[in-house]
Amino acid sequence: MADSPNCDLKSLSPLQLFERVTEQGEKVRALKAGKAPKDEIDAAVRMLLSLKLSYKTATGQDYQAGLPPKDLVLINNGTTKEEDEDLVDPWNVQTSNAKGVDYDKLIVRFGSSKIDTDLINRIERATGQKPHHFLRRGIFFSHRDMDQVLDAYENKKPFYLYTGRGPSSQAMHVGHLIPFMFTKWLQEVFDVPLVIQLTDDEKYLWKDMTVEKAYEYARENAKDIIACGFDINKTFIFSDLDYLGTSAGFYKNIVKVQKHVTFNQVKGIFGFTDSDCIGKISFPAIQAAPSFSSSFPQIFNGKENIQCLIPCAIDQDPYFRMTRDVAPRIGQPKPALLHSVFFPALQGAQTKMSASDPNSSIFLTDTPKQIKTKINKHAFSGGRDTIEEHRKYGGNCDVDVSIMYLTFFLEDDDKLQQLKQAYTSGELLTGELKKVLIETMQPLVAAHQERRKQVTDEIVKQFMTPRKLAFEF
Amino acid sequence: MADSPNCDLKSLSPLQLFERVTEQGEKVRALKAGKAPKDEIDAAVRMLLSLKLSYKTATGQDYQAGLPPKDLVLINNGTTKEEDEDLVDPWNVQTSNAKGVDYDKLIVRFGSSKIDTDLINRIERATGQKPHHFLRRGIFFSHRDMDQVLDAYENKKPFYLYTGRGPSSQAMHVGHLIPFMFTKWLQEVFDVPLVIQLTDDEKYLWKDMTVEKAYEYARENAKDIIACGFDINKTFIFSDLDYLGTSAGFYKNIVKVQKHVTFNQVKGIFGFTDSDCIGKISFPAIQAAPSFSSSFPQIFNGKENIQCLIPCAIDQDPYFRMTRDVAPRIGQPKPALLHSVFFPALQGAQTKMSASDPNSSIFLTDTPKQIKTKINKHAFSGGRDTIEEHRKYGGNCDVDVSIMYLTFFLEDDDKLQQLKQAYTSGELLTGELKKVLIETMQPLVAAHQERRKQVTDEIVKQFMTPRKLAFEF
Repeated sequence: MADSPNCDLKSLSPLQLFERVTEQGEKVRALKAGKAPKDEIDAAVRMLLSLKLSYKTATGQDYQAGLPPKDLVLINNGTTKEEDEDLVDPWNVQTSNAKGVDYDKLIVRFGSSKIDTDLINRIERATGQKPHHFLRRGIFFSHRDMDQVLDAYENKKPFYLYTGRGPSSQAMHVGHLIPFMFTKWLQEVFDVPLVIQLTDDEKYLWKDMTVEKAYEYARENAKDIIACGFDINKTFIFSDLDYLGTSAGFYKNIVKVQKHVTFNQVKGIFGFTDSDCIGKISFPAIQAAPSFSSSFPQIFNGKENIQCLIPCAIDQDPYFRMTRDVAPRIGQPKPALLHSVFFPALQGAQTKMSASDPNSSIFLTDTPKQIKTKINKHAFSGGRDTIEEHRKYGGNCDVDVSIMYLTFFLEDDDKLQQLKQAYTSGELLTGELKKVLIETMQPLVAAHQERRKQVTDEIVKQFMTPRKLAFEF
Repeated sequence: MADSPNCDLKSLSPLQLFERVTEQGEKVRALKAGKAPKDEIDAAVRMLLSLKLSYKTATGQDYQAGLPPKDLVLINNGTTKEEDEDLVDPWNVQTSNAKGVDYDKLIVRFGSSKIDTDLINRIERATGQKPHHFLRRGIFFSHRDMDQVLDAYENKKPFYLYTGRGPSSQAMHVGHLIPFMFTKWLQEVFDVPLVIQLTDDEKYLWKDMTVEKAYEYARENAKDIIACGFDINKTFIFSDLDYLGTSAGFYKNIVKVQKHVTFNQVKGIFGFTDSDCIGKISFPAIQAAPSFSSSFPQIFNGKENIQCLIPCAIDQDPYFRMTRDVAPRIGQPKPALLHSVFFPALQGAQTKMSASDPNSSIFLTDTPKQIKTKINKHAFSGGRDTIEEHRKYGGNCDVDVSIMYLTFFLEDDDKLQQLKQAYTSGELLTGELKKVLIETMQPLVAAHQERRKQVTDEIVKQFMTPRKLAFEF
């Protein structure tokens, strides 16, 4: 293919063209470095120029090394993906790969940065704490501007955390806890304020649901979130339907974002159409606004420029790419982000888990018996068809859902490593592996249920009351 | 033209076709009633059928007597108007006629009802008060469901008034007072609560203006509105930027409206395009929401079904056609409306007055001298070129702006009638007529300025504080 680059250039996406130019550029450099014959170098350079021209024709922009066609990715996200690319937006996650979404590709497509060992080490140095296993194991794998947050933190400049949830039904599953567990850790090691948005208005707009029902779900979901152990003195949880009507700053930021985003833009980013209701079309501004500290004058004393850091699943990134685009135009700092991978369904990593299918995951309301039955019956196995084959060839950890779940929830690195090795070697059978998962999840869910029971309506009310937190600004 | 109806049917608008079918139907009836020769009747019937077919082809709907093509008018308002039709939407009023917009045509196009003598008499009976001169003189000329409001009022069922203003600059002109003067009268004779919306968010979205400036204009404009004499115990004035962040009910109604209106609909009604910001696109819901009493739980004790009556200039009707379409789908009563004509610019009735052109009208900040100069210099005259001609042929009251202004502001019916007669006959010269206008406007503006001086920031704050009014619900 590299020898006849022009034959199929028209069928390539801007990103594919970008990659071809990059490859060809490396080839030219290698030839020159290796002092290859002049005609060979000249041919490679002509090909490079030809590829650069194709890139410019396709994107309207000059090729710039290291700068993938971000704007195009941003504008066409989800609509012009390649045949074999994963589909990732706030409402859909689809991949044809049993190992799940290709996250390295997603980083390039979304134009974010990988959380590498250097960054993890820097977080460890800054906080003096061992990095959370979500960081060590690549569950939070991508970021935007986390280095700037650390710069600021090291210079004693404050920042705050913002995360959220769309309360679509009363029952949350264990996958919903991932961003909250990680956010709780971040709050503890950095000792910063946290705001948690419950987008009940979004759920009302998208689902067949009354405003009252959406708000009720928000309050119920708040109990599960609080049960993760957030500090009531450092955390503000809010329902949009509620907080919009009680905040002096929130609507002002919403309307500022709404002034600086066109229908064309949200159409490109979120795939809205002319038949969508105007509520959906303007909603992205409501998810954007908590990225600005002036949306919470009661917490930040009216200060406008406190840096925000958003831990979230990567499917929420389109909202914040939009937010980061708008921020400088309304005189606000861009929020930084930490992106997590998706939590797989019990049936396998090809789809994001669905709260509407009770068998697709372990729910926070499940009994020990339900957990046992679900894992035994539904957890997709990377094991072999017979015990003999399994002993001989070993299991496949890359597609085994029990291993995936243990990667999320088994904190002991050594034990996880032992399990993986034993499963891969065939020493550990699928039934035995599932038993470990059951014994990990049962006490975890039971402990959550125990903590949730102690979350009274009064405690929810306190978390959801706009107020000053335990920080001075 | 009536003899060869097919020659130009394709160039006719649905409304013109509708009128042609109606005319032809009347012709057929007249021929039949007059027992005309059979072949003459047959020819007329063939023509009628041919016209009906053209109508159906153009609109996709069967002709129905008395039902003009409303949906088409609604959806295409402003975009498919006829060549000689007036353009009327919330941002544009254009007519080529020196007498101003043809309001009878507008009633047919908008599908509203004329305020006729019967309705005016009924208002007089219901309130026991002489109808306001704005009603007697056709300044409020059109309505929707005013009869239902009166039905309810006569059965002791409550209603409330809602009007508003977009605060685009500090200076208001006398034309801006029209809806407020009339609303004040309605409030007095019906003794009902009144809410006044200041759409500072709209102005921020449409104009090159900061949020802070828009809010400042809102508060300044509130002073002029309060100076009209509203009862502080019965009136709530609110800025959107402010009230949205303090009301438990307003945002909930906004999001309900936003769920039930698509981009296609607002594109049709308001002419928005894909390049418009999402704030403009969703704004109509914010002007719609005060039509529902649950937007003001502090006034209506949380009651959802209090009837709303909206006095406004006819250009605001598209917002409320949309609102009336949504209302039953969110379980709310449709707001009723009373529509006023436009206030003419000093330069003539072809355009709506502009707050940005200081010579286009008399401003509430003008000195007596400025008023005199403006009227003498700029008020378009229906008089003749020379005194001799004027004495001989008389002036034209239909296009004379002084007569128009006096129709708005001179309360004495007899005196107005005398002036018109004397001007038409040529007895009264333009200079003399202008003198009467100057002597009418100078004390009116001076009195307004005097009342405005007494409106302190404290009084504005009281009017703009969400609170219970002097009514039980």
